[in-house]
Amino acid sequence: MFEATKVGRTVDKESFKTQQEALRTQLLEVQRELLQTDIPVIVLISGVEGAGKGEVVNRLNEWLDARGVRTFAFWDETDEERQRPRYWRFWNAIPGRGKLAILFGGWYQAPLEQRFRELCKDAELDAELNRIVDFERMLINDGALIVKFWFHLSEQDQKTRLRELSRDDRSRWKMLPKKGRFHEHYQEYEHVAERIIRHTDRGISPWYLIEAQDRRYRDLTVGKTLLHAVKTRLSQPPATEAPPTPGHLELPDGPSARITLLDQLDLSLSLDRETYKSELRALQQALNELAWEAYNKKRSLVLVFEGVDAGGKGGAIRRFTNAIDARLYRAIPVAAPTDEEQAYHYLWRFWRHIPRAGYITIYDRSWYGRVLVERVEGFATEAEWRRAYAEINQFEAQLAESGTILLKFWLQVSQEEQLRRFKDREQVPYKRFKITDEDWRNREKWPQYKAAVNEMVVHTSTEYAAWTLVEGDDKPYARIKVLRTLRDTLKAALAREPDGAGNRLIQRDEKQE
Amino acid sequence: MFEATKVGRTVDKESFKTQQEALRTQLLEVQRELLQTDIPVIVLISGVEGAGKGEVVNRLNEWLDARGVRTFAFWDETDEERQRPRYWRFWNAIPGRGKLAILFGGWYQAPLEQRFRELCKDAELDAELNRIVDFERMLINDGALIVKFWFHLSEQDQKTRLRELSRDDRSRWKMLPKKGRFHEHYQEYEHVAERIIRHTDRGISPWYLIEAQDRRYRDLTVGKTLLHAVKTRLSQPPATEAPPTPGHLELPDGPSARITLLDQLDLSLSLDRETYKSELRALQQALNELAWEAYNKKRSLVLVFEGVDAGGKGGAIRRFTNAIDARLYRAIPVAAPTDEEQAYHYLWRFWRHIPRAGYITIYDRSWYGRVLVERVEGFATEAEWRRAYAEINQFEAQLAESGTILLKFWLQVSQEEQLRRFKDREQVPYKRFKITDEDWRNREKWPQYKAAVNEMVVHTSTEYAAWTLVEGDDKPYARIKVLRTLRDTLKAALAREPDGAGNRLIQRDEKQE
Repeated sequence: MFEATKVGRTVDKESFKTQQEALRTQLLEVQRELLQTDIPVIVLISGVEGAGKGEVVNRLNEWLDARGVRTFAFWDETDEERQRPRYWRFWNAIPGRGKLAILFGGWYQAPLEQRFRELCKDAELDAELNRIVDFERMLINDGALIVKFWFHLSEQDQKTRLRELSRDDRSRWKMLPKKGRFHEHYQEYEHVAERIIRHTDRGISPWYLIEAQDRRYRDLTVGKTLLHAVKTRLSQPPATEAPPTPGHLELPDGPSARITLLDQLDLSLSLDRETYKSELRALQQALNELAWEAYNKKRSLVLVFEGVDAGGKGGAIRRFTNAIDARLYRAIPVAAPTDEEQAYHYLWRFWRHIPRAGYITIYDRSWYGRVLVERVEGFATEAEWRRAYAEINQFEAQLAESGTILLKFWLQVSQEEQLRRFKDREQVPYKRFKITDEDWRNREKWPQYKAAVNEMVVHTSTEYAAWTLVEGDDKPYARIKVLRTLRDTLKAALAREPDGAGNRLIQRDEKQE
Repeated sequence: MFEATKVGRTVDKESFKTQQEALRTQLLEVQRELLQTDIPVIVLISGVEGAGKGEVVNRLNEWLDARGVRTFAFWDETDEERQRPRYWRFWNAIPGRGKLAILFGGWYQAPLEQRFRELCKDAELDAELNRIVDFERMLINDGALIVKFWFHLSEQDQKTRLRELSRDDRSRWKMLPKKGRFHEHYQEYEHVAERIIRHTDRGISPWYLIEAQDRRYRDLTVGKTLLHAVKTRLSQPPATEAPPTPGHLELPDGPSARITLLDQLDLSLSLDRETYKSELRALQQALNELAWEAYNKKRSLVLVFEGVDAGGKGGAIRRFTNAIDARLYRAIPVAAPTDEEQAYHYLWRFWRHIPRAGYITIYDRSWYGRVLVERVEGFATEAEWRRAYAEINQFEAQLAESGTILLKFWLQVSQEEQLRRFKDREQVPYKRFKITDEDWRNREKWPQYKAAVNEMVVHTSTEYAAWTLVEGDDKPYARIKVLRTLRDTLKAALAREPDGAGNRLIQRDEKQE
């Protein structure tokens, strides 16, 4: 695989000058064109030590218009990052549509270093690489262009290069321990790199292997290849996943063949005022304590509230937040995405609010909008919302693996009860703003929403993130059910270690902990 | 996830009759339409014990036209299967274009059973599931429709059903050990099933979860869903992977920036007649013994010979086969695919000839045609040959993991030497047939082939399946290099256990061994 990066390619000084000039002009041009599109471009810079990855990054920054580029290095994690699921930092680095991001190391840095230093095994490495393949495919399906560069040196060239670097005062290299002996591990490093590249070298996101010995050859090749990749992408239709096979069952005729989970809810369930009051008090007390326990144990909590309009989400959320110290939680009301948010993958705006270890985020509506309102209203194509089930499961799996406790509630009310509440709201001045034409329109699509909810639960109710369906016609009953589910689940989850066993991520570097 | 399969859906007898009649007509119609297309349809039948998977298979066979359907069950492996890489049996079961195959258990059966019986761990299960995701995506990209059914029962329903079954003399169930106590493991089984479904439930190949308690509901739903899936697929363009980003480097101008691996070969290398003869004798002797050793150790050998026209593949292969007992090897000359072969994925015709444990297959040209002649001549689209690199690596990884020793040779000659050989062949009557107009045409595309070879080596020369580039201008030199590489690699490989460690497949069921 690396043989072809050891053939001695060079470019002479004179030729470099001429070619660089033309290249710079073209790069700026293509960058301007890019700004008019909805394509985010991700440039990943990886390679062996001493190959001059930093120099390449500097060169690209010199050649490109700084206004459209951001550079991120992934060496050590910040406090903010360490306390969140591992991919949080990558989601923060992803460029918006029309923009370009240079990721130094990117999502390959940690797996590479950790496997090389034998902090994880091949099987764990492979699991992480599969996550990367899915992650890249998800971004590409969303329109992104990913250009992955690997810079390579022969064993002898690396030895020479590292000797030079260790004499250079400005070199990061100088500060590393055992620097002089790094090249002794050349083959082990190459072995890990081959595994990583082989596993993640896919038709839709190939690796570009570049011989790094001659700096002029290296830099020109990077520039030209990037230029060509962007140009090609600009001239092509957006990359979309294959059209889906229809993902729903074709049901036989007759009502008994079409019963859904929602049909099974007994909406007549209710609670008398007295019981409600006393239960509420007890549950709030317990939840307050559990929230502090979670804080002390550094376990995060993510709550998702979805439900029909006027289903009682807000009321249920308030009964919970009233119980919790305000420093511990954030409630995120989710409406239509802002312009900024729309420039990103649909999960981006939810990743932003993922809580730090020990804290709580409450989503009042959530990423499930993709398979609910966006599906029913046609804001997302069928291919988009169909593949969202797997994307959402992968997202939630990451939360669970990082120790986050995740609960999802669906609040259901009957059509009659909804009508009653709509009318009530229209009567009460301070509630009137809560009811819009859209609510009335949604109401007409009741059957479509019902089908969407049913399918959502089938595809996304998992052991680590189960849906709780709540009978919502009686508000006291619904609130108590939510709080009780919260208490019981939290209690059980806090009583055991976060597992993620068997599906464990590569352990974080203990030095960094 | 399984909640929705426990809601009590039913269909009454009368309604079943009416609906069945309409369904059967439509199924036969759609099957006839399918025959005119290049779409292979794969129906996977899985589910909990007692759900009636066998009944469903019988029902589908009753409803469909037998001429377009084949059914395969994957319970225990045959001798033929056990001695080959695990996926060999699935490749044998895949339907041709326009045909339909019902796979009872399919590639999900072994992972499910083995994880349930704790013969493997979650991490190993996940690795296998990732392989399945890649495998299904590969077939779908090639035009296939995959319809995956999971049949489910509630815990109580399963208990009842299994009790009934164990009283039925014709039931397979009756013959299983500890049959009566199976339902005691209901939750563990469901736990494994959830992991499998969640991991492999993708937008392009979703799972259909079906409540199996009511047989009429179950069968009608299967039939209708299958009908709808095929109909939808018939009305859609073939599923293709996203357009690729360009996968090759854009090189700077100037010859020194464009040196390739092939340029580095010293084609002047040669061997005198005497040395050739004695080396040949010694190598052939050694190879004969190594082939028997491999046979005894049940290690297979797969050899791939590729090279320019008149590069000397045939001569090199004969020097090897002359040394080997004829019972041990098969040489497969690969030309343009036959009609039958063209009805399948391009890898199918190579899987067919994968040797049994201990045997040798020699491919004179191979699956690399996809990224060589098919690429250069435009027989494959860019998307097709680009994704082939990853598909080939995955294929070869499976060979390596099953203990197969894999060697790949590229025989290179200079353009002048090729011309000389072409002319020679035209002079010798019994060699004249070896030279065609096509050979002359290929010769004109020398630069394109060179680029394709270089890229092929970059993407597919791996630790477990490295390319050996052979300087071919001097035939004796080339043959000795091939045989020596063979001897050394075989010797080294036979001296150690097949590893595949860290990337290990789920172990085969020891009972079956």
